[in-house]
Amino acid sequence: MQFIGITHHGGPWAAALAGSRVLPLTSVDEFWADAEGWQDKAAALVAGAAHAGASDDDGWLERGSVTEVPLVPASARVICVGLNYKAHAAEGSFKDQELPPYPTLFARWTASLSVGNVPVPVPAGEAGLDWEGEVAAYIGRRVESAGEDTAADAVFGYSTFNDITSRRAQKLTSQWTLGKNGDFSGPLGPVVSRDEVGDLRDGLQVRTRVNGIEAQNGNTRDMIFSVPAIISLISETFTLHPGDVIATGTPEGVGYARTPQWLLQPGDTVEVEIETLGTLTTPVGDISLRSRA
Amino acid sequence: MQFIGITHHGGPWAAALAGSRVLPLTSVDEFWADAEGWQDKAAALVAGAAHAGASDDDGWLERGSVTEVPLVPASARVICVGLNYKAHAAEGSFKDQELPPYPTLFARWTASLSVGNVPVPVPAGEAGLDWEGEVAAYIGRRVESAGEDTAADAVFGYSTFNDITSRRAQKLTSQWTLGKNGDFSGPLGPVVSRDEVGDLRDGLQVRTRVNGIEAQNGNTRDMIFSVPAIISLISETFTLHPGDVIATGTPEGVGYARTPQWLLQPGDTVEVEIETLGTLTTPVGDISLRSRA
Repeated sequence: MQFIGITHHGGPWAAALAGSRVLPLTSVDEFWADAEGWQDKAAALVAGAAHAGASDDDGWLERGSVTEVPLVPASARVICVGLNYKAHAAEGSFKDQELPPYPTLFARWTASLSVGNVPVPVPAGEAGLDWEGEVAAYIGRRVESAGEDTAADAVFGYSTFNDITSRRAQKLTSQWTLGKNGDFSGPLGPVVSRDEVGDLRDGLQVRTRVNGIEAQNGNTRDMIFSVPAIISLISETFTLHPGDVIATGTPEGVGYARTPQWLLQPGDTVEVEIETLGTLTTPVGDISLRSRA
Repeated sequence: MQFIGITHHGGPWAAALAGSRVLPLTSVDEFWADAEGWQDKAAALVAGAAHAGASDDDGWLERGSVTEVPLVPASARVICVGLNYKAHAAEGSFKDQELPPYPTLFARWTASLSVGNVPVPVPAGEAGLDWEGEVAAYIGRRVESAGEDTAADAVFGYSTFNDITSRRAQKLTSQWTLGKNGDFSGPLGPVVSRDEVGDLRDGLQVRTRVNGIEAQNGNTRDMIFSVPAIISLISETFTLHPGDVIATGTPEGVGYARTPQWLLQPGDTVEVEIETLGTLTTPVGDISLRSRA
């Protein structure tokens, strides 16, 4: 099953996605209160619609007619993992340091999240924006002090994610927070349920293209820390809730570490394509887009 | 005027606080949509109640009868400033480094926030918890690429805050996120409107006590980066919204930098007392409290 967030009845709703059609289910908060239950209900509704022939009268909408929003509660934590691929750790500012023995966790607030095809502005003072194509994992169950097996079962699904970064702001001090929370800088694709994705350690190819030119080409089997290991570690210190997101880190090929640097400029288009999860497209625009934030 | 969050009609509401009585105003989200307007309305209601003699029939409640919650929208960013007092920067892990030329910003998610008198658990693996008494500033207006004057005007008010820290988790890697987001680890006091507080550069004394023993005694006039300067810098990269919180950093006297270390244990009580803003009390409990998160 695939799910997206949409604006419906004036608020954020969860909807099942089947091809070019979407079926509104319930509010985003209610969806995450029982994500597995809604997955079962949605599967039955989609199967029924496929059998009967869906029409607008059944509540189905054309995807092109809805406004998409992240399928994430406002209160969610978006916990990002830095330096989770050896070849990426070796290309950037941390290349002269030993690999950290724990996952390097940094934070996005949900206010920075976006969806596909929404343009991202380049903030003032940045020479451009950098791409970081990666897989996002969605927590489906409360997780407190869990081992890796329990943590693995707590994953509801996965989506594409582009951790679009303001490198100047990121590197102002030791903490990366500012440069990781630009307006509209965190686009997420549709959430694909775990049963359709399997284990990331079996390998999903992650490709990023800028204006059609390949910039990143990695595979999730090369992650240093697995999603269950990351969740287990986090859950020792704080309790994860349904709808929280783990951004699993980007492979090598980011722009700032190149000579010369290659950064996104207004007019560029960046795509993150991940096996099974689809393609996430983000146009880059100018600073005037910030008026929408 | 002072304001708190309470649970009312099944959700988070903003309420005016006058002595031991509270007047529910509107939902937390609606309050922040027009915080200055609600301040005016609340001032008129409080003045009217003082004149007429308030009774329960007017909607006033005893503070002791309500459940308090943070006066913060779920979507808010809690942007914390590290190393914002010279004497604190000189006592910890960063003492051998030069003072950073920009504010060191790290993130709390709203899920870590709490209020006074709610016990905080010590997570597994921590030798205890550390205190960081400080002032929190609340954003009252949208702020995009603002200068310091505009930024100063965007501050709605201030509260006490204790940035209670899991030091082991904080220091696992270069990024502090994990150790700064423990369950119930971010208690906030009532929000005091800016007109009653004035300019932090004029100096508010910040004291932290553990079991009645003074642990911190600093003054906001010693901040390296002022609140307007911090807001201005942030607003270059992302747009601040009403209800966002700036935690302004703690003065010297934290526990982990002492020899021997002094960390909070179950059964301890930590208090943060700040001139004009009041006293914020947090009991420390054991790991079983995590079941409430």
